[in-house]
Amino acid sequence: MAGDATRVVVLLSGGMDSVAAFYEAHRKHCVVACLSFDYGAKHNAREIPFARHHAERFQVPHFTIPLEFVARHFASDLLESGGEIPKGHYEEQSMKKTVVPFRNGIMMAIAAGFAESQEAQAVVIAAHSGDHAIYPDCREDFMRAMGDAVRLGTYVGIEILRPFIAMSKADIARRGNELGVDFAQTWSCYVGGEMQCGECGTCVERREAFQLADLTDPTIYMSTPPLPPRPATH
Amino acid sequence: MAGDATRVVVLLSGGMDSVAAFYEAHRKHCVVACLSFDYGAKHNAREIPFARHHAERFQVPHFTIPLEFVARHFASDLLESGGEIPKGHYEEQSMKKTVVPFRNGIMMAIAAGFAESQEAQAVVIAAHSGDHAIYPDCREDFMRAMGDAVRLGTYVGIEILRPFIAMSKADIARRGNELGVDFAQTWSCYVGGEMQCGECGTCVERREAFQLADLTDPTIYMSTPPLPPRPATH
Repeated sequence: MAGDATRVVVLLSGGMDSVAAFYEAHRKHCVVACLSFDYGAKHNAREIPFARHHAERFQVPHFTIPLEFVARHFASDLLESGGEIPKGHYEEQSMKKTVVPFRNGIMMAIAAGFAESQEAQAVVIAAHSGDHAIYPDCREDFMRAMGDAVRLGTYVGIEILRPFIAMSKADIARRGNELGVDFAQTWSCYVGGEMQCGECGTCVERREAFQLADLTDPTIYMSTPPLPPRPATH
Repeated sequence: MAGDATRVVVLLSGGMDSVAAFYEAHRKHCVVACLSFDYGAKHNAREIPFARHHAERFQVPHFTIPLEFVARHFASDLLESGGEIPKGHYEEQSMKKTVVPFRNGIMMAIAAGFAESQEAQAVVIAAHSGDHAIYPDCREDFMRAMGDAVRLGTYVGIEILRPFIAMSKADIARRGNELGVDFAQTWSCYVGGEMQCGECGTCVERREAFQLADLTDPTIYMSTPPLPPRPATH
């Protein structure tokens, strides 16, 4: 079943990137647990059931970690407590308001401590080459420093694995497709309605990824206006 | 009241080091909030009320962040779910079992995100020169990497301040005394009984600190056997 003996914990939001990363990790390593975080984002209630669904498919223990403190005291339009999710591409200045301060740092720190407790050696995160510089905790220099902190701050030297770091979201769509991921069972939309909206930054990127990968997008969206042109700085 | 305009968040456990660090920060900076973490340690219920007491004294907002996930799923003798707290000096191999995996990493990550949400510029942690190498997340190289991660992973570049890093615990007792800290209103003991035990690693260090600082120890202990000799590697 598992490729090597490396025991890993997977950060599994229920989005297309992390689900594909989980399938890949399940093939390559021994996945001891998948972690989702409920930090009060508008779409948490939509994406976490998909995370659980995929973990259960491979009978891997799945934990949802409540971060009520973030929900209540952090400021971000991504949260239930925040303003509306903007439409259009990520690069827009407005998307900055969807940043949840140091979210990746918090999730990686908790996953690292959990991994050490479970006698795992590594944490898998689905960071990829299209992650956005508007999120400081997606930037390469942050990821390297956090990787150092996690390795140095644990007995066994927990590693942060980023299997998709050289890949685009379209590459991930292709890889997930090869690995048998049913992307209809994943959630991207930040609005968190009954269906994915098709117009927010993360829906636009999702739709674009399938298009660039030349794959049929199995997602049912609320609306599918023509995709906006990709920003030059993408 | 506050010395400079730097807005800081203080990690305040209710122990003697963090309470002294809070008094110092309150004098030097603008403390926007104090954070305590309830991670299911045997002594959390004893120390957190002291943290709140000191925050209230200066009318600084105090938040207790529940980390139930740590309490339930992390392995450590420090936790309610773990074994007995060993007696004697920290350096003993047995104290290794009191490590809560990546605890400082988790607390610093959450504090960093909170600080950014509160438009603060820094997080104060009462790390000191006597912190123990048996805890990987107390080591200097971890602290530096985590400081980099926090600075790089936040918009404003949150700084980790360690005002006591060049000081011993005895120095902190002296400084706290000058700052007007009533150390009877602080808690160290890992056992978490009705009184501080006087015999666990952290009680031994507390007693020793007052002795070395030539100060009267105002603490009421369960028992005060002669202090064990300090290990050569201290």
